[in-house]
Amino acid sequence: MPKLEKGMVQVYTGNGKGKTSAAFGLALRAIGRGLKVYIIQFIKGGFDYGELYIADKLPNLKLKAFGRGKFVTEKPPAKEDVKLAEEALKLAEETVKSGEYDIVILDEINVALNLKLIKTEKVIELIKKKPKHVELILTGRYAPDEIIEAADLVTEMREVKHPYNKGFQARKGIEY
Amino acid sequence: MPKLEKGMVQVYTGNGKGKTSAAFGLALRAIGRGLKVYIIQFIKGGFDYGELYIADKLPNLKLKAFGRGKFVTEKPPAKEDVKLAEEALKLAEETVKSGEYDIVILDEINVALNLKLIKTEKVIELIKKKPKHVELILTGRYAPDEIIEAADLVTEMREVKHPYNKGFQARKGIEY
Repeated sequence: MPKLEKGMVQVYTGNGKGKTSAAFGLALRAIGRGLKVYIIQFIKGGFDYGELYIADKLPNLKLKAFGRGKFVTEKPPAKEDVKLAEEALKLAEETVKSGEYDIVILDEINVALNLKLIKTEKVIELIKKKPKHVELILTGRYAPDEIIEAADLVTEMREVKHPYNKGFQARKGIEY
Repeated sequence: MPKLEKGMVQVYTGNGKGKTSAAFGLALRAIGRGLKVYIIQFIKGGFDYGELYIADKLPNLKLKAFGRGKFVTEKPPAKEDVKLAEEALKLAEETVKSGEYDIVILDEINVALNLKLIKTEKVIELIKKKPKHVELILTGRYAPDEIIEAADLVTEMREVKHPYNKGFQARKGIEY
């Protein structure tokens, strides 16, 4: 099994399109090289995304989504949402610690942090304790400053132009 | 074969990481829905990328890369590079016009435009003449203003943090 010599911590954040897609594209590149990838999705569980229909057919790619199929908006958040995010984080901790996967993608974890479903210091701890060869990818808007600080590589997806005012609706196969 | 009701023109540009990956992630989502995707790569031909080893195993995904395995830096560009970019554009025109593919990704075409390997007005014409159901994705740094203007949705990948000063080297399976 090939390993990365040095795994980094990458963050994809910002209000623009392409954060989760970039993580999936990166996963595709990695499995093309024979690397092993685990994608853990925060908040997204229960939603219908096109990538889910192909992910389980890909070699060396594992995916698990947590969430209950509704947007988390309550403040303070519902206990059930906190519980699911905590479960996702626990799986993330175990997966990273095991060193079995070369890349661990924590999709939308920044949103979970912003909603205070999980504590930033726990994620910082996860980052600090990760095995050297593991690449950790954190996606989602609103990445907290502490996460940006702890990361090696941070990209902001910035929305330059969006057809909101043209009666835009999310399209199957493109937006989900 | 499912079709998009309305295809748009998307641009991923900027100096940050994740433009090509976002396009590949989007392709993955689309083929998960049974849509057909054609990825045409400008400039990248002859280079060794991890995604190439998995792309030909994916259903409904076709990929062709043009280029001769070296970075185009000469000004004016070498005739051979112009020729290859023109061939890529010709294939793009034929593929879009045929309407056979739901999504056509023109990877790094913005760089080809910036290097003046192909003419911006030809790409604008391609955009204007595309069948309604076709989604067109243009990636690469330096997207010209005319392309941004003609697009429906534009995302800038902005580099917030990069470990250049830590002796960063491109890693197999992550950066290529």
